[in-house]
Amino acid sequence: MSLGTDFPVRNPDFEKAVRDSFAKQGIMDHIGATMTVVAPGICEIRLPYSDDVSQQHGFFHGGVVGTIADSAGGYAGFSLMEAGDGVLTVEFKLNLTAPADGELLIARGRVVRPGRSLTVSTAEVSVVKNGRETVCAIMQQTLMRIVGRADVSG
Amino acid sequence: MSLGTDFPVRNPDFEKAVRDSFAKQGIMDHIGATMTVVAPGICEIRLPYSDDVSQQHGFFHGGVVGTIADSAGGYAGFSLMEAGDGVLTVEFKLNLTAPADGELLIARGRVVRPGRSLTVSTAEVSVVKNGRETVCAIMQQTLMRIVGRADVSG
Amino acid sequence: MSLGTDFPVRNPDFEKAVRDSFAKQGIMDHIGATMTVVAPGICEIRLPYSDDVSQQHGFFHGGVVGTIADSAGGYAGFSLMEAGDGVLTVEFKLNLTAPADGELLIARGRVVRPGRSLTVSTAEVSVVKNGRETVCAIMQQTLMRIVGRADVSG
Amino acid sequence: MSLGTDFPVRNPDFEKAVRDSFAKQGIMDHIGATMTVVAPGICEIRLPYSDDVSQQHGFFHGGVVGTIADSAGGYAGFSLMEAGDGVLTVEFKLNLTAPADGELLIARGRVVRPGRSLTVSTAEVSVVKNGRETVCAIMQQTLMRIVGRADVSG
Repeated sequence: MSLGTDFPVRNPDFEKAVRDSFAKQGIMDHIGATMTVVAPGICEIRLPYSDDVSQQHGFFHGGVVGTIADSAGGYAGFSLMEAGDGVLTVEFKLNLTAPADGELLIARGRVVRPGRSLTVSTAEVSVVKNGRETVCAIMQQTLMRIVGRADVSG
Repeated sequence: MSLGTDFPVRNPDFEKAVRDSFAKQGIMDHIGATMTVVAPGICEIRLPYSDDVSQQHGFFHGGVVGTIADSAGGYAGFSLMEAGDGVLTVEFKLNLTAPADGELLIARGRVVRPGRSLTVSTAEVSVVKNGRETVCAIMQQTLMRIVGRADVSG
Repeated sequence: MSLGTDFPVRNPDFEKAVRDSFAKQGIMDHIGATMTVVAPGICEIRLPYSDDVSQQHGFFHGGVVGTIADSAGGYAGFSLMEAGDGVLTVEFKLNLTAPADGELLIARGRVVRPGRSLTVSTAEVSVVKNGRETVCAIMQQTLMRIVGRADVSG
Repeated sequence: MSLGTDFPVRNPDFEKAVRDSFAKQGIMDHIGATMTVVAPGICEIRLPYSDDVSQQHGFFHGGVVGTIADSAGGYAGFSLMEAGDGVLTVEFKLNLTAPADGELLIARGRVVRPGRSLTVSTAEVSVVKNGRETVCAIMQQTLMRIVGRADVSG
């Protein structure tokens, strides 16, 4: 029984690599996002609602939904890369399927196909309102592995 | 000679409607984004670099690039809607074509096809480094017009 | 136990509506595609390999992969619409995750979120080579319900 | 004055490479598509209407629109690659902005950003009805250069 995907893990310290890199994403701290789960090929990011992440109707801004989806999918991919690798988002596509109206946003990223050069991830984003969770967005994403350029540059 | 598109303008006060709605997007103020141009079917948003909008390499975060692209395209669309309408993003797709490495990000949204129900916009995002501008992302987006539900709810 | 999704079925004759509409898509017959499964919110389309659907390396063409993915997702959505409705694709996004190299292509469409106006579907496309199935593409798609304009116009 | 983009040309025989590869895409011949323009970073493909490329309303099928858009963008990218390279589509995203209702479809692909590994292209697809041209789709696409594996394998 495993939380993560079955894809091979190439960096035994992947969780530390992922969390160290996440800690360097200034935007995550600035909007109040935290990384709640890291497993092979999997990453979950949570973001409580505040006026600082809102759009004009008082919901989470679609770009903010995209931001944590992008990071959740990206770190899902990064968790399967080798020590010393870096990761960059090539592109992502987000469908907003319901208003992101609630007190908490949860983005769950998952690798669909890891690759030597390119990795494809998906993410599902849910919004929690009065304790009830609803899917509000789905994402497809392409990631590029950057060899020999550590994601966590000291 | 016109800055905007040639699509018909349905709300003579579109600029005020757009700027009032933008002022209600808490995320824009929180990250330091400003709306620099509004014209029929056109919108430009600028964002100076800070650690608050960074990813792990010290560039603008891809999600932040998506956030201002989404708003630039969305308000380009909103500028062509009727007084009292609201706008929601149905989906957007962002290609990150170069590292968003620089001191300023400029997102320029433009309507490709306005519609009674759905509007399609694109955005081009440039990064300015040492005064030189480079395209770093392109976006395609679908917007939905919300009739009878003011975007700027008082 | 059910093959389909749990979303409400609004047209008791949905299978006939879907199959009649599919039969009118000339391109499906022209390339040799058949609809193998229809269930509420679900649709499967199969396409045997031939030189008529190839790209330059002798694999299935990416556009052909997109064509049956688009139809599988579209008819998954159509299966949940009302009698007399029509359906149009607003947009779709396809990631080609492995070479579509094999003797058979299978596209499985599934509704993620049905809506009064817009429906979001996904599709997974697999290629079968020597009897072994591999996922070769994933798709996200937005559909529009066309009220009062039968998809199957007599 | 030049028809093409200003990106550097690496293969002086690019036009022959592009046209030879196109001639090997069986689907293009099968649906009746022809390549009408090749220039550096540019490619145009045309497709006359027939029942063989239709959807249920008698318009061009959205997947067919995607197929020629994918090839137009892909060959725009291929035109800037080196002799002996191959090209594969990583992903594409298509917005259908108007019904593809007419007698002729024209897909115009253009490179936005050529790269050593990845190239980003766009395509605009127009439909011609009674001699009048209307944009009916726009596409964004990511391509991968395959080094040392000729696109035109003999």
